[in-house]
Amino acid sequence: MRTITIWNEFRHEREDDEAAAIYPDGIHEALAEIFRSEETAAEYEVQTATLDEPEHGLTEEVLDGTDILLWWGHEAHDEVAAEIVDRVQERVLEGMGLLALHSAHYSKIFKRLMGTTCSLQWREDGATERLWVVDPGHPITDGLEECIELPETEMYGEPFDVPEPDKLVLTSWFEGGEVFRSGCCYRRGSGRIFYFRPGHETYPIYENKEIQQVLRNAVEWVSPREGAPRSFGERA
Amino acid sequence: MRTITIWNEFRHEREDDEAAAIYPDGIHEALAEIFRSEETAAEYEVQTATLDEPEHGLTEEVLDGTDILLWWGHEAHDEVAAEIVDRVQERVLEGMGLLALHSAHYSKIFKRLMGTTCSLQWREDGATERLWVVDPGHPITDGLEECIELPETEMYGEPFDVPEPDKLVLTSWFEGGEVFRSGCCYRRGSGRIFYFRPGHETYPIYENKEIQQVLRNAVEWVSPREGAPRSFGERA
Amino acid sequence: MRTITIWNEFRHEREDDEAAAIYPDGIHEALAEIFRSEETAAEYEVQTATLDEPEHGLTEEVLDGTDILLWWGHEAHDEVAAEIVDRVQERVLEGMGLLALHSAHYSKIFKRLMGTTCSLQWREDGATERLWVVDPGHPITDGLEECIELPETEMYGEPFDVPEPDKLVLTSWFEGGEVFRSGCCYRRGSGRIFYFRPGHETYPIYENKEIQQVLRNAVEWVSPREGAPRSFGERA
Amino acid sequence: MRTITIWNEFRHEREDDEAAAIYPDGIHEALAEIFRSEETAAEYEVQTATLDEPEHGLTEEVLDGTDILLWWGHEAHDEVAAEIVDRVQERVLEGMGLLALHSAHYSKIFKRLMGTTCSLQWREDGATERLWVVDPGHPITDGLEECIELPETEMYGEPFDVPEPDKLVLTSWFEGGEVFRSGCCYRRGSGRIFYFRPGHETYPIYENKEIQQVLRNAVEWVSPREGAPRSFGERA
Repeated sequence: MRTITIWNEFRHEREDDEAAAIYPDGIHEALAEIFRSEETAAEYEVQTATLDEPEHGLTEEVLDGTDILLWWGHEAHDEVAAEIVDRVQERVLEGMGLLALHSAHYSKIFKRLMGTTCSLQWREDGATERLWVVDPGHPITDGLEECIELPETEMYGEPFDVPEPDKLVLTSWFEGGEVFRSGCCYRRGSGRIFYFRPGHETYPIYENKEIQQVLRNAVEWVSPREGAPRSFGERA
Repeated sequence: MRTITIWNEFRHEREDDEAAAIYPDGIHEALAEIFRSEETAAEYEVQTATLDEPEHGLTEEVLDGTDILLWWGHEAHDEVAAEIVDRVQERVLEGMGLLALHSAHYSKIFKRLMGTTCSLQWREDGATERLWVVDPGHPITDGLEECIELPETEMYGEPFDVPEPDKLVLTSWFEGGEVFRSGCCYRRGSGRIFYFRPGHETYPIYENKEIQQVLRNAVEWVSPREGAPRSFGERA
Repeated sequence: MRTITIWNEFRHEREDDEAAAIYPDGIHEALAEIFRSEETAAEYEVQTATLDEPEHGLTEEVLDGTDILLWWGHEAHDEVAAEIVDRVQERVLEGMGLLALHSAHYSKIFKRLMGTTCSLQWREDGATERLWVVDPGHPITDGLEECIELPETEMYGEPFDVPEPDKLVLTSWFEGGEVFRSGCCYRRGSGRIFYFRPGHETYPIYENKEIQQVLRNAVEWVSPREGAPRSFGERA
Repeated sequence: MRTITIWNEFRHEREDDEAAAIYPDGIHEALAEIFRSEETAAEYEVQTATLDEPEHGLTEEVLDGTDILLWWGHEAHDEVAAEIVDRVQERVLEGMGLLALHSAHYSKIFKRLMGTTCSLQWREDGATERLWVVDPGHPITDGLEECIELPETEMYGEPFDVPEPDKLVLTSWFEGGEVFRSGCCYRRGSGRIFYFRPGHETYPIYENKEIQQVLRNAVEWVSPREGAPRSFGERA
């Protein structure tokens, strides 16, 4: 039994009617439901944490008990305390898996782990996106067709200023004419990191069954192995 | 002064009216013109070689005098002799630069150096392609705008079965809905290899000024350094 | 239940007294014993194949039923038929795991998958080797101390002419003054490949418990996932 | 004419007699001399900066005029102001080359760019080190023999907690039994980074002619191209 902690900024859903309509309990609860479903309920314990909780809900105790952390943030990246970023980074380097979702490309923790600006191009146009499987041999693409089509999304475009991914597994095509490396795998210290582009506060992306499949595959892929040493330097 | 050898299958242009109309002297001569132009004439000596010449024009002597090899092949990959493939591979591993163009993804020499099938999806539809700069810091993209638009091209789509590129510099968007890793950098032995997608026997892709810029940049990037050891194992 | 096929050239052990004394039933049987032991007997079915069998023991049927292939060859690489190399390459690209052991760096199948000469320096000196864990977060190093010490080995030295590994997990130190990248991970097509240096026809390397641990970890790491598509291009 | 800025902590040489004896004017001046020598004097303008100067000598103006930054720090990493680290990181991502030397593996700027702990093993034993050329085709190894032997050095050992290098060019062997990835290439944003292990405050490593050759090659390799865009996102 592994523990997933889903972190959400949880501001749009309380401030913005459109977001509240799609995600009445917050994006974190919508994400949590995916892992509480019958298919994976026996494998994962799911908990949530949000920005406005003390220590953003990410106390030492919570992180010590977390195997996989999902991160969703957008408008309040700056409000995340440096001390918490340090703490999360340390845990990732020790082996905790990290899923950085959508606008988390600009989160402090993702930028910290990448070392780059993580900048990209974007446009809110609600047009079609197709996520193409670039690496059909990768576990994160198990069970997918050759591409996932999302009828309405926000566009993210290259250049995406990240270190060359260890493995690129998904690339997006946008109706408006752009492309984007939407599924990028990294290893930092003992931890695995997956950046996954889809997801937005006002499009119901996380209700899409194929997107849910990628999320389940990705959580599995970033999971630490049971009994693996917690620290890079420490050996039994 | 470095020597570029441009290898072309040279069949379409002799067998097919449409290809002959666009490339009356063969694709190799159109490519040669790019490097014989004022901008680079002082830097490169340019020669050509074609499939139906003895030893496909790639004698030991020719290859010994070649710093950079461009390869264009399509319908007659199978007719390239194994012995010549061995010879070219050996020279690349010793440091000769290789530019694999368009349908050369399926050439024996490219598959030999990659170790994979190099398969991809494709469709002849004459629709628009946009080549996006993924890595604006790479010398191969020097002088480019954020993307190159080609009004009519053949589509190539993912998955492209190649080893993860050392550096991905260009990704294509296609009007019909696909994406493709169109500019891929590799090192094998002492040699640099660049796969560059654009180019077709019946679209005048190589007349496009920005495509020419990429070709010039890429030839520069794959060039061996003067005085570099010819063999990986040999050290002075 | 996954099937391991252990391929061995099986010549030294029949021609050379010293090799026969250490590996009376052949290196393949010594390797097979590791996976037939209590720890893994329930997980793997183990079979062997050798050079002098028809089709080198690697018929279509055998390969179709193989999940992981171990390869040990040394003095007779040239006798492996091109057709069998093609067949093994195809299966690796479709997802079969490959463990290339020791002198298999010069096997046709490993060179085919790498695209390079795979040359290296070597010296038969029977001195000490230490294999250092470079990536303690990698599953192939699970359960290891910080290094494995082998009292007597043949030396392999850099430069090792292979493509940059996707992940370097072990680096060797040799008493005589050399270093070597002894544990290298690759992906080609849907298949995982691990090159593992230790092993020699006249040193009982494969009896070492820690080397056996690496072999078990590596077999697990290269294993295809159940239900994964067999071909890179094919998607359900 | 490119500008090299050599940054040195400059504490050991003022506080410690042994260091002062070897580097009476500071390590920065010893490094500066290498580039002021006849061979490269026409190519580079060399300036220095040290920790105890205002803004550590790295004002906006100095950094704006710097093409390549060398970094040597050891006992006072913590005293480097966060604001200056931000400033240097920004310039590297815009294209400024960075050479991180020896104990700079633990500098704030190197850790920031890597995203990992950059921890390693070490022992001050004054024993022999051999730096093996792992990639003889890389410009940083031009002109070297197969290895560089240093009679007395401090030992650095694996595991070295850094992201997998884009290209590993040198690996060290230590008399005491360890190995280390001593020459590691990275790209972050538009900037090139080279980590180079040798160098110590009480061994005269930087007087070694072959080490000087690597430093010259590395400075050339990390240099930004003339006219390249300064920012990853900005395109002309």
